[in-house]
Amino acid sequence: MTTPTLTVAAAARELAGLVPESVLRDETALLDRYARALWSTLTEPGDGVAGGLVQLLGPVPALEAAFGSDTALGPLAHDLGDLEKARRRWRPRLADGGHALAVARQARVELVTPLDQWWPHRLDDLGRHAPHCLWVRGDPRALSAPAGAIALVGARAASFYGEQIAGQLAAELAATGITIVSGGAYGIDSAAHHAALQAGGPTVALMAGGVERPYPAGHRDLLDRIAGRGAVASEVPCGSTPTKWRFLQRNRNIAALADATVVVEAGWRSGTLNTAGHAASLGRPLGAVPGPVTSATSAGCHRLLREYDARCVTTSAEVRELLGFETGSPCEDASRTDDRTRVLDALSTRAGRDDADIARRSGLAVDEVQAVLGLLSLDGTAVRSDTGWRRPTH
Amino acid sequence: MTTPTLTVAAAARELAGLVPESVLRDETALLDRYARALWSTLTEPGDGVAGGLVQLLGPVPALEAAFGSDTALGPLAHDLGDLEKARRRWRPRLADGGHALAVARQARVELVTPLDQWWPHRLDDLGRHAPHCLWVRGDPRALSAPAGAIALVGARAASFYGEQIAGQLAAELAATGITIVSGGAYGIDSAAHHAALQAGGPTVALMAGGVERPYPAGHRDLLDRIAGRGAVASEVPCGSTPTKWRFLQRNRNIAALADATVVVEAGWRSGTLNTAGHAASLGRPLGAVPGPVTSATSAGCHRLLREYDARCVTTSAEVRELLGFETGSPCEDASRTDDRTRVLDALSTRAGRDDADIARRSGLAVDEVQAVLGLLSLDGTAVRSDTGWRRPTH
Repeated sequence: MTTPTLTVAAAARELAGLVPESVLRDETALLDRYARALWSTLTEPGDGVAGGLVQLLGPVPALEAAFGSDTALGPLAHDLGDLEKARRRWRPRLADGGHALAVARQARVELVTPLDQWWPHRLDDLGRHAPHCLWVRGDPRALSAPAGAIALVGARAASFYGEQIAGQLAAELAATGITIVSGGAYGIDSAAHHAALQAGGPTVALMAGGVERPYPAGHRDLLDRIAGRGAVASEVPCGSTPTKWRFLQRNRNIAALADATVVVEAGWRSGTLNTAGHAASLGRPLGAVPGPVTSATSAGCHRLLREYDARCVTTSAEVRELLGFETGSPCEDASRTDDRTRVLDALSTRAGRDDADIARRSGLAVDEVQAVLGLLSLDGTAVRSDTGWRRPTH
Repeated sequence: MTTPTLTVAAAARELAGLVPESVLRDETALLDRYARALWSTLTEPGDGVAGGLVQLLGPVPALEAAFGSDTALGPLAHDLGDLEKARRRWRPRLADGGHALAVARQARVELVTPLDQWWPHRLDDLGRHAPHCLWVRGDPRALSAPAGAIALVGARAASFYGEQIAGQLAAELAATGITIVSGGAYGIDSAAHHAALQAGGPTVALMAGGVERPYPAGHRDLLDRIAGRGAVASEVPCGSTPTKWRFLQRNRNIAALADATVVVEAGWRSGTLNTAGHAASLGRPLGAVPGPVTSATSAGCHRLLREYDARCVTTSAEVRELLGFETGSPCEDASRTDDRTRVLDALSTRAGRDDADIARRSGLAVDEVQAVLGLLSLDGTAVRSDTGWRRPTH
């Protein structure tokens, strides 16, 4: 059992090509990033003991504390849950880091950490469960989503309806500069990414496995295009397979990276509800697109509306409202019902009627009828003829 | 200017056939009902001054006070708003009562008042705006809806989808004895009434005009069938045309007569939203059935979900839940994600793997892996072979 070799020489060799040149020249920055990269290879996503240790000590001392003696931790140790148990799950992976970094260098992947300019600080809301770093194909600037980011997610086995709506929402939102975040999967994810690309807008795909391997394999071209205009990112190191656990944890990153999450289509037990649950527990706005109650792929959305208090969204304007942007169309009151309606009800287009007749028919007093008729005649809704008041025929 | 003739002889003559024989033999009961019938002919629906006067004094003294001297009212007068103004709108109709009652007798309509056994006391929640009485074709017992009543309402220009859902909800609810309340209109109303009749369940149609005239005319047969099994009712007297005002006020009766209201389909500015607004302001549960966001006839439902905090309902079980009945299916937690998932992720169906390998792949400690494998082997989710642990191929 050894501590990972945290020397500047090792860090410079291992991170060459993975970080900007400026980092390679700054020993502290270099070691910090190297330690974060190693943490990413040692742990499964969401490991709160590792996250807590790094938060408390910083990544380099945390690594030393994790594999050195307990004295390095001192009185902090009791805050970190079962550290000895955690060490036993990290140790089996001590030898894996080198391979992951080699694959990353080969695939021209970038390492982005919380110290970097483009780190998406929305992820910090995950606290101890935040990723140590992101492995990124494409432009890391896309991660920071300056104009806001929306997660558009949903069923792989989507319907034509769902893909159509996902595409329309993504296109309209991306056209205004909002970043479309999704998971790169078939169905809704794919429709959202495609539409964002077509609209020339920013889009980010978060992966459950290593970013160098396209998943699903059939999305090699789509993921290349996303990397070409935006970013494909993952917290698990290169060479990692996408396991079920990593999908579930990837979903928390989707929810955290976006300002709000909208589920476009989902089955009753869809994994997409997991993303929605993360959004809700992060306090991020959650929307769901309704669909026919006869459609199994909308059942999860309706469940979100019923059980998770999701907001019903039907247009991109309503998604923008969910994001906190002002709505474009002022909300009008339901039409007011008043004496005007009752007097109009009492008028005919053919027969002229006198004030008393209109009063009787409308159930209003004669003087009220006269007052309303005066107003109606101003805008031409009622006209006075030889035989009395009537509605115009035009 | 005269007070209506409130004599026992006049009441007995005018109400013959409209009330049960027992009422004709009870002078107080007879006069009370006669006065309510006259109030119904003197006022437009929702006249709060008339309603307040009747609530305070009872229908007979209220009628005397309305057309006699102010001394009859005494110190109560100031509670009733502009009574003099109200008198001026009631007076033009003093001569109309006789005709309305004659039409009712001819059409074999029944008069049901708050003193009658089958009066639906849900309407009392309307306070001063409650109807004075109901004019009923069919069986007045249907009004009381002992097993609960649901208003199923929606667009006249409904889609096939909307009519299908309305029919399905109505059939399933009516089969359990729940009364289906609606407005007898084309589209959603019609689909709901039809399905309730077909299911052999109770249904009530509330009209905006006199119950003796089928409205719409094309629903003569449907309304006859509703009267044959349930009730067709209105607060406006026989001979009244259905005006826009009366439709809006009729909607308040639909909302009040039902324990909850569900809007199945509605356009963005649908009159159905008026019924929903009444349900909400009465504190009655309000549900809306979602539909495709591409369908204009679902836009009003989605608006109710967004703006009126309506509950999303997709099945008859969810409508029953809205009514306060217990739901049949227990609500299950979202699937828990745990070490079990991570160990299963690390197993293969082909290659056997040892504890250390599984620990490394799952990011768990070896002792944790062993504990989980023990559990997995109990239910056959993991099997031990010569080469190590694997998932069974069956």
